[in-house]
Amino acid sequence: MYEGPIQDLIDELSRLPGVGPRSAQRIAFYLLDAPEEDVFKFADTLRRVKQQARFCDVCFNVSQEERCRVCRDPRRDRTVLCVVEESKDVVAIERTNEFRGLYHVLGGSISPIDGRGPADLHTRELFTRLADGEIQEVILATDPDTQGEATAAYLSRILRDFGIRVTRPASGLPVGGDLEYADQVTLGRAFEGRRSMFPETTGS
Amino acid sequence: MYEGPIQDLIDELSRLPGVGPRSAQRIAFYLLDAPEEDVFKFADTLRRVKQQARFCDVCFNVSQEERCRVCRDPRRDRTVLCVVEESKDVVAIERTNEFRGLYHVLGGSISPIDGRGPADLHTRELFTRLADGEIQEVILATDPDTQGEATAAYLSRILRDFGIRVTRPASGLPVGGDLEYADQVTLGRAFEGRRSMFPETTGS
Repeated sequence: MYEGPIQDLIDELSRLPGVGPRSAQRIAFYLLDAPEEDVFKFADTLRRVKQQARFCDVCFNVSQEERCRVCRDPRRDRTVLCVVEESKDVVAIERTNEFRGLYHVLGGSISPIDGRGPADLHTRELFTRLADGEIQEVILATDPDTQGEATAAYLSRILRDFGIRVTRPASGLPVGGDLEYADQVTLGRAFEGRRSMFPETTGS
Repeated sequence: MYEGPIQDLIDELSRLPGVGPRSAQRIAFYLLDAPEEDVFKFADTLRRVKQQARFCDVCFNVSQEERCRVCRDPRRDRTVLCVVEESKDVVAIERTNEFRGLYHVLGGSISPIDGRGPADLHTRELFTRLADGEIQEVILATDPDTQGEATAAYLSRILRDFGIRVTRPASGLPVGGDLEYADQVTLGRAFEGRRSMFPETTGS
């Protein structure tokens, strides 16, 4: 136990995901030695994240304005919508340069074990977006794990009635993995080779 | 790349030691979801560390007042002085409950390759502390690595003329390691079995 604020800082750092007591100590002493202005800037950034970071009113991606960078971009293809779990997944997909449509961030996946059902995700807003008929394809790019597959299955059952193409990125993503950790080539190929979730219909 | 302050936060976090881009992202999103008051408290702690954390005027341990908790404690044995590299080492040694003397934190080790010589450490202040003759034993508990051994060798050469007992914690600490990572039992035993650095003299 250290004296004073250095111990408080170690305690706060230890609470962060993936930071153990040893790294918390190492980071705290690093910050103790760092120039005051750097540490103050870090503290300000923390405050700004809570004060300024928000979510896009349309797609629920992380944003700084009412509508996010992707939704604001007039060059995006407004007929294709990619449904993902988290903003992290948007960044991963953007990195592949394979996708030029819009996104819809669910804010998680269906997980009965965590008490998280469709009503806890932005599913209602998804269906509202599809109502005007502009969107012709929905790519269900939820994680290729149990919860993500369940979420895609749930959404595809409802979307079947919308008369639009519903696809899921091709296998190629390692099953049981986390979409955001896929390398760019794998993820890009998975988008290229996406398959219809209704193989019995003619789809396209 | 994310929009706005969340990307700034990821960038700031990535600069911390031991935090890669993936963990920075994970921590940033964790903080984005965390209650505002928790994040503001974290930001305040960061500021407080720079504003309030200081070093003991006597031993250079991390402190909140002019003199640190150990130096202020009247029950400590003022005849034995343990010289360490960093405040982290003080915490590690305190945890063993094997040592009841005082400390002297050098603020690093001698490392010619990093351009760090004795003058960059609190060596002068160490010799001043020894001048009044109250201290009868100095334990050189620098890290058992090259720089730590060199530092102990340098100090022992000078301390030889002070006519006091100079010891080094017993082998038992893994060579090439970092003192602060030793487990409590190993470190405690190393203190118990410390040996004189002048075996040819009678010492005690």
